[in-house]
Amino acid sequence: MREKILDLLKRKTNYISGDFLAQRLGISRQALWKHIQDLKELGYDIVAVPHLGYRLQATPDRLFDCEVSRNLNTRILGRKIYYFESITSTMDAAMELGIKGAPEGSVVIAEAQTRGRGRLGRVWFSPKYKGIYFSVILRPKLAPANISILTLLAAVSVVEAVKKIAGVDTEIKWPNDILLENKKLGGILTELNAEMDKVNFVIIGIGLNVNNDKRFLPSGAISLKEKSAQETSRIELLQEILRRLETNYFILGHKGSKAIIERWREYAITLHRRVKVYCQGQYIEGEVVNIDTDGGLLVRKDSGVIQKIFSGDLIHCS
Amino acid sequence: MREKILDLLKRKTNYISGDFLAQRLGISRQALWKHIQDLKELGYDIVAVPHLGYRLQATPDRLFDCEVSRNLNTRILGRKIYYFESITSTMDAAMELGIKGAPEGSVVIAEAQTRGRGRLGRVWFSPKYKGIYFSVILRPKLAPANISILTLLAAVSVVEAVKKIAGVDTEIKWPNDILLENKKLGGILTELNAEMDKVNFVIIGIGLNVNNDKRFLPSGAISLKEKSAQETSRIELLQEILRRLETNYFILGHKGSKAIIERWREYAITLHRRVKVYCQGQYIEGEVVNIDTDGGLLVRKDSGVIQKIFSGDLIHCS
Repeated sequence: MREKILDLLKRKTNYISGDFLAQRLGISRQALWKHIQDLKELGYDIVAVPHLGYRLQATPDRLFDCEVSRNLNTRILGRKIYYFESITSTMDAAMELGIKGAPEGSVVIAEAQTRGRGRLGRVWFSPKYKGIYFSVILRPKLAPANISILTLLAAVSVVEAVKKIAGVDTEIKWPNDILLENKKLGGILTELNAEMDKVNFVIIGIGLNVNNDKRFLPSGAISLKEKSAQETSRIELLQEILRRLETNYFILGHKGSKAIIERWREYAITLHRRVKVYCQGQYIEGEVVNIDTDGGLLVRKDSGVIQKIFSGDLIHCS
Repeated sequence: MREKILDLLKRKTNYISGDFLAQRLGISRQALWKHIQDLKELGYDIVAVPHLGYRLQATPDRLFDCEVSRNLNTRILGRKIYYFESITSTMDAAMELGIKGAPEGSVVIAEAQTRGRGRLGRVWFSPKYKGIYFSVILRPKLAPANISILTLLAAVSVVEAVKKIAGVDTEIKWPNDILLENKKLGGILTELNAEMDKVNFVIIGIGLNVNNDKRFLPSGAISLKEKSAQETSRIELLQEILRRLETNYFILGHKGSKAIIERWREYAITLHRRVKVYCQGQYIEGEVVNIDTDGGLLVRKDSGVIQKIFSGDLIHCS
């Protein structure tokens, strides 16, 4: 009902009479009034003037499910959205939902995370209303060994959405960082629930610094606001990421990983660089010669041997 | 408290006075009486005779956590036990517990499963009080690609426990079946929660047909009772499996997979056989020449090429 009321209010910049609204929605004036109060409590600035009716003056900067769904126009991504003011981690919530059979494309969004995390249990700083923190449940027909491509796919989607909505060029550092001026703007975390030979589901988590003030950012981090000196609509950015994720996911399904990898190459700063990768207890040093179609990084060691790496901590040496 | 009462009652075959029990436990006679009633409702046959006290005549055939813990003598396996009369699947419950941070060695036991499952979503028939159905949470320091060894480790543990408790020789069919007279006695299901480069936790589920009557078993299945014509203590068998799992898990940690693989070889019927394996959308046919230290099956195809397979549906052709 709230969604319907907002939809009607947003169509007009002028007042809409309470009688019209109530009739259109098939509810009493009393019930309408109650819903309007609820919306005001959520932060919607709605004025009521006798004889004129209601008018929506301002929408709060919140990632409410009804706002994310509005004009999203996706087929599966976001068809079910779970919104939290604050949560330990959207990854954990999405994992639980995945186990309970949540459909592909379900999304968990939080305004703040108290235990937001990055790879290998590292902390992802998630202050309230400043960034975008969400996790998506996918159920790809991939073998557990082949899901690295989804991390790359998510990175490509984020870069493209940031470019479109904020007009800012960003870069991808393998395997999961989104960089801006060589600082961390965002990160992608891919987690897996699988049998030996079958993926049950994958959770892709995305954290992005959007409207954070510079002085409150951890060192080495950057926000879109710091770069562009203005606020970016978090809702528009989130919607665009979801759209790109869906489009790229469909491309992956129909055309295979090659089409994703090609776009990834355009944005990646890790190719043809000398790197040192800490991977499963050992350091691998060499030059990145290519990325394989399965998402593995091909590193030519000084011995000439080429080693494929699927994940690890990477330092650019040149 | 229940555990303590049972412990005291089980130490004696004769009557124990209520006064002694109450004093020993630091509770009132009234409270003791209440606990005894609760135990009786759980199926414990406790007789109370005036002036003599209480005597435990019979323990019900249930896998209660307090019974499983009793004299288990493990360090981590079973240090936390969750018992259910009936559950959809112990795998699902263990997954949720794992996400919530349940410690390594936590065990979920059910007397019946309404949606017990095997590999690839197949049904595991789980009638009440007849079999053993449980899942164990492990947090091994292994890469996601290397956890196949845990399925083999669990199979070895089951074979050894069945031999010790029921005196029956069983065999392992790669990757996850426990066979008796070429019929399915049990199965092992390994599921994974992981990041790209780090296992968060692994769930090992074990289902075993113990005291099932032949006429109620699905075709192709067998129970210990069908073979030995007598009932096996499910509690003793479950305890022994947990002990073996722990021992073998420690061996894996200290000595590596080789020690596990060697024992697996002894029980496996899949080595040096001609097989056809359906694996990720394709059939691979050839002779099994060996099993690798990472648990991968090495199949020599007719072309002479040796292919390593980590999971799949296997048919013995010879």
